[in-house]
Amino acid sequence: MIKIHHLGHSQSERIVWLCEELALPYELMPHVRDAVTRLSPPALKALHPLGAAPVIEDGDLLLAESAAIAEYISVVYAGSALKPGPDAANYTDFLYWFHFANGNLQPTFMRLMAVSRAGLPLEHPVLLATQARFALVLQLMEDRLAVAPYLAGAALTLADIMTVFSLTTARLFQPFDLAPYPHILAYLARIGARPAYQRAMAKGDPDLTPMLT
Amino acid sequence: MIKIHHLGHSQSERIVWLCEELALPYELMPHVRDAVTRLSPPALKALHPLGAAPVIEDGDLLLAESAAIAEYISVVYAGSALKPGPDAANYTDFLYWFHFANGNLQPTFMRLMAVSRAGLPLEHPVLLATQARFALVLQLMEDRLAVAPYLAGAALTLADIMTVFSLTTARLFQPFDLAPYPHILAYLARIGARPAYQRAMAKGDPDLTPMLT
Repeated sequence: MIKIHHLGHSQSERIVWLCEELALPYELMPHVRDAVTRLSPPALKALHPLGAAPVIEDGDLLLAESAAIAEYISVVYAGSALKPGPDAANYTDFLYWFHFANGNLQPTFMRLMAVSRAGLPLEHPVLLATQARFALVLQLMEDRLAVAPYLAGAALTLADIMTVFSLTTARLFQPFDLAPYPHILAYLARIGARPAYQRAMAKGDPDLTPMLT
Repeated sequence: MIKIHHLGHSQSERIVWLCEELALPYELMPHVRDAVTRLSPPALKALHPLGAAPVIEDGDLLLAESAAIAEYISVVYAGSALKPGPDAANYTDFLYWFHFANGNLQPTFMRLMAVSRAGLPLEHPVLLATQARFALVLQLMEDRLAVAPYLAGAALTLADIMTVFSLTTARLFQPFDLAPYPHILAYLARIGARPAYQRAMAKGDPDLTPMLT
């Protein structure tokens, strides 16, 4: 059975949610952030040099990097469920939004978090440019979700699994306002209504109310 | 024939290189950065809201996000060449390093670039933490390349195609020293010896000497 090393309030919620969507059995290996620094604990660093979650164990395999884990679980354990292939009409929409999540949305957010913590004056050009880039990224998602219920189209895919954390739990670390993006908020309401998402958050982060609004 | 919108000195060198490795025909659509700001020109913004390269056109398809484009070209035009599948012994190594490139290496570099341009004091904790994280990411690659000639193992894959830009051309924008990482440097020498890489750089960025050392 796959062991999911899950750090509370972290990107590893994606993998717990994925297993719940696929109804796959898994063993949850919970880790807790340092109460003061909010950093990942030494146990995760001992498991993998980057000290981040998620990390999964599957027999002798140890695998990090959430997109890699999501692909692995879908392909090896679920017949590529939630992962439209080249014969699907939405193949390229899927590819775009799947890679956008960790290649654009989450990095832009992380950059905003770093720059925001640097204590720059509000009109500093680096701060303004980073904020503008993040707004552009959110607007791109808003425009997509105005015409599709899920990022790749009619149905949930790994693209959504990869994306939602950056719009919800990430706001614990660097708040941002989704009010200007009603279609993103409607999307989060759809996600929040999914029993698998509810089960994942209840199991993985029972102390956290999902930040869907 | 695929049209590759290539911005000089940018991540789109990956896609030119990929097509050269696969010996696929393509039409190069060159774009040039603003001479003063070094930003992407308005023509790219007109093509795609993020205004970044690469963007490809393939008939009616317009696709951005370099990892999505790399997967699309490999799967649709090259029988999944350079993309080890679940039956390959190095499948999970491939998945890890393929997603690491744009999910970890390039974002950490972009964060370093933003924070470095903020004009912080050298001992500012945000600057130190970002520098330390980038060093950790490079060390992870160094350790991998000490035991494997390419990131996924014995042969070049899309993981390498996605990675090399961040170690080479990216240094134009935010210099960093690879001298502490001899296995990364040996890897770049292997890459630089590949005729397809040489052709790609000569066609896409004829004004640029590849930064392999």
